[in-house]
Amino acid sequence: MTTAGLVLAGAKGESAAEGMVAISRFRLANGLDVVVIPDHRTPVVTHMIWYRAGAADEPRGKTGIAHFLEHLMFKGTKSHPEGEFSRLVAELGGEENAFTSNDYTAYFQRVAKQHLRKMMEFEADRMRGLVLSDAVVDPEREVVLEERRMRTDSVPASQLGEAMSAAAFVNHPYGAPIIGWKPEIESLNRADALAFYQRFYAPNNAILIIAGDVEAEEVRALAEKTYGKNKPTRDLPARVRPKEPDPVAARKIVLSDQRVEQPVLQRMYLTPSYTTAKPGEAEALDILAQAMGAQSTGRLNQRLVLERKLAVSASAWYSGTALDDHLFGIYAVPAQGVTLEDLEDALDETLAEMAETGFSDAELARAKTRLMADAIYQRDSQSALARNFGAALSTGLTAEQVIEWPGLIERVPGSAVKEALHWLVKKRSVTGYLEGIAP
Amino acid sequence: MTTAGLVLAGAKGESAAEGMVAISRFRLANGLDVVVIPDHRTPVVTHMIWYRAGAADEPRGKTGIAHFLEHLMFKGTKSHPEGEFSRLVAELGGEENAFTSNDYTAYFQRVAKQHLRKMMEFEADRMRGLVLSDAVVDPEREVVLEERRMRTDSVPASQLGEAMSAAAFVNHPYGAPIIGWKPEIESLNRADALAFYQRFYAPNNAILIIAGDVEAEEVRALAEKTYGKNKPTRDLPARVRPKEPDPVAARKIVLSDQRVEQPVLQRMYLTPSYTTAKPGEAEALDILAQAMGAQSTGRLNQRLVLERKLAVSASAWYSGTALDDHLFGIYAVPAQGVTLEDLEDALDETLAEMAETGFSDAELARAKTRLMADAIYQRDSQSALARNFGAALSTGLTAEQVIEWPGLIERVPGSAVKEALHWLVKKRSVTGYLEGIAP
Repeated sequence: MTTAGLVLAGAKGESAAEGMVAISRFRLANGLDVVVIPDHRTPVVTHMIWYRAGAADEPRGKTGIAHFLEHLMFKGTKSHPEGEFSRLVAELGGEENAFTSNDYTAYFQRVAKQHLRKMMEFEADRMRGLVLSDAVVDPEREVVLEERRMRTDSVPASQLGEAMSAAAFVNHPYGAPIIGWKPEIESLNRADALAFYQRFYAPNNAILIIAGDVEAEEVRALAEKTYGKNKPTRDLPARVRPKEPDPVAARKIVLSDQRVEQPVLQRMYLTPSYTTAKPGEAEALDILAQAMGAQSTGRLNQRLVLERKLAVSASAWYSGTALDDHLFGIYAVPAQGVTLEDLEDALDETLAEMAETGFSDAELARAKTRLMADAIYQRDSQSALARNFGAALSTGLTAEQVIEWPGLIERVPGSAVKEALHWLVKKRSVTGYLEGIAP
Repeated sequence: MTTAGLVLAGAKGESAAEGMVAISRFRLANGLDVVVIPDHRTPVVTHMIWYRAGAADEPRGKTGIAHFLEHLMFKGTKSHPEGEFSRLVAELGGEENAFTSNDYTAYFQRVAKQHLRKMMEFEADRMRGLVLSDAVVDPEREVVLEERRMRTDSVPASQLGEAMSAAAFVNHPYGAPIIGWKPEIESLNRADALAFYQRFYAPNNAILIIAGDVEAEEVRALAEKTYGKNKPTRDLPARVRPKEPDPVAARKIVLSDQRVEQPVLQRMYLTPSYTTAKPGEAEALDILAQAMGAQSTGRLNQRLVLERKLAVSASAWYSGTALDDHLFGIYAVPAQGVTLEDLEDALDETLAEMAETGFSDAELARAKTRLMADAIYQRDSQSALARNFGAALSTGLTAEQVIEWPGLIERVPGSAVKEALHWLVKKRSVTGYLEGIAP
């Protein structure tokens, strides 16, 4: 077992030293990675199981199966029929949820600490014991299709987002929506779900994260009794994804729909992720997103909203938690009467200015402070903390990298932030216009 | 054995009736489909083997393996070491070639008819007997990478074409270049090639086409003695490809490169193929491409080149021979001093005019005559004829459909051509700008 120091700055004004706790990590004989994050502020635990399997791990032609399986994981096992697990969590006054991402699928419950064992028993049971019949699979597919209709097909902004991702990744599966492409969801079936399940839902492909009022040895004993019984998947292949070629041409997507009342300008650039970047580069992109995109003080807001009055808002984001190269994005809403073309021109001028002159020390300091503060606030939330570790570990990072992150951010030199702007060149980009149609 | 009448209009002025020959088709016990097209005008034969395996059948992450294997198919077998087959064809005064497409890979030789048996022996031998070592695979990968560098990476127009296809298909493998994405070609190896070969290079996944101075019974006897010895691949899966979702937003790709001396405007629309279209629809798209895009008389040339002087050329194409939905395209070269934006606006006006008023009877008649004449001229070329059947059969069509095609074209009503324009809507399209950069 290894332990690592983590500053858990408390909300109640403890000093950093007081908040320091020991994170423990160990691996069961069947390959299950376990992370224990003691947090004794309240007598609750957050129990999360993370599978290193997400939408980008789907077989070709089966987009949506990772997310569909997430739905189906609530359909019961031989020991616990459909609904029993969720009912138990509710009866215990707990919370539960699940989410599917490109690189992982995770399930979590938060309950009073004395119920942890039950959660582990149920979750370990459905790791290998899921029972699926066509009678439960077929109606659930309709649920997913309805989810897609509601959230994507009837929302022009979501449609544009999907089309932009698809254009941003010409070969890598990140280009497909996590919920799946409609004509493929329509043909997903029980056999597809079971194949994905049997391959990926295994102790040697999962990370158990327990945060809360527990100690590592206690978790280890429980984990061995519950998850420890599960057999690993043999010959689990490495997560080698289709390779994304270097972009050669700027792309633009125009989604025109009469339902659009507010035009929007978006931009996405293909950039390294924390997992693929050279040391310091991803941190620089995170700082860049803040320096450019922060509310009110961000450079985009300064130039486009306050000075030139071309936009009512302008922000930036960096989606760096990913196994493979991912995206840096910009989002701007034009002011009344300003065309998307004019706003885009102004955005490009602002980007050129940044590439030319970089950022002031004050801008960089503000950006770093905000990122470090976010990390510290996040540590106040048991589930955010657990989620942070889960996302990092399931995309190929280490717990140390999570722990050291604020320090790394602090040490990024201004020159590296300016240097990171070289990723934001037109040929690496997709620009999206969301626009209405005059009736 | 079934036979079908085909008018082989001769170049030497035979009447249609004199040129009528019987095409024969039969299947060997191991699943090999055989098509014999007797053509007694000269004592030569065209021998083609078509595999129902192309770039769109590649496993994910292995783009380029179909084409790479095409190269490797010349590396020899246990019976015939590298170079022997090609040397033989050359010594016999013959020709040989091979090509990889999205839906098929084909190998052909044309030789004097008495050498047909030898061709069949060699080709049948390498259908199952290819021997590959790393020593031949590794240098050949460099050859392919060099081919890619020469034809694509150093040719901005090719780069734009790749980027446009990638944007046109967000999920279907037609979006990937046949030669493969560079970072994936780089890691293709012997095992990848053999896996693809062993799965797809099999009699039950191939079509043998023999055109020339032969009779069906003679071919059948030879085929049984040569190809008949090859074992089929068991449990060959159906060719079910990832599904392309309905396009929702217009896309645009701008490739700016200082090597570009002549700007070009391109447009591609996702349309049904002959295999996926409703009856008559693909034929209508072929007529549409002619009516729009024919040299001098085509509508685009009339409006954009002759009348408005905005372009120096403007053409259209329909790529309808495909297992799944494929593309309809437009290509225009702006006149000196005309911007791509202005040319695109004029193109869209011309498209709107066509959608509004359709085509005149004279325009339609010209388009049909040209297509039918092309088909008849093509029948004069033994290899073009063989190629026609091979492409059709390996994309899911029947020999009857090839034979009946001119008649079907003739019968397409003008209303269907106008109706086909509904596929050419902005949201189904990708527009490409190839433009220089001022030095």
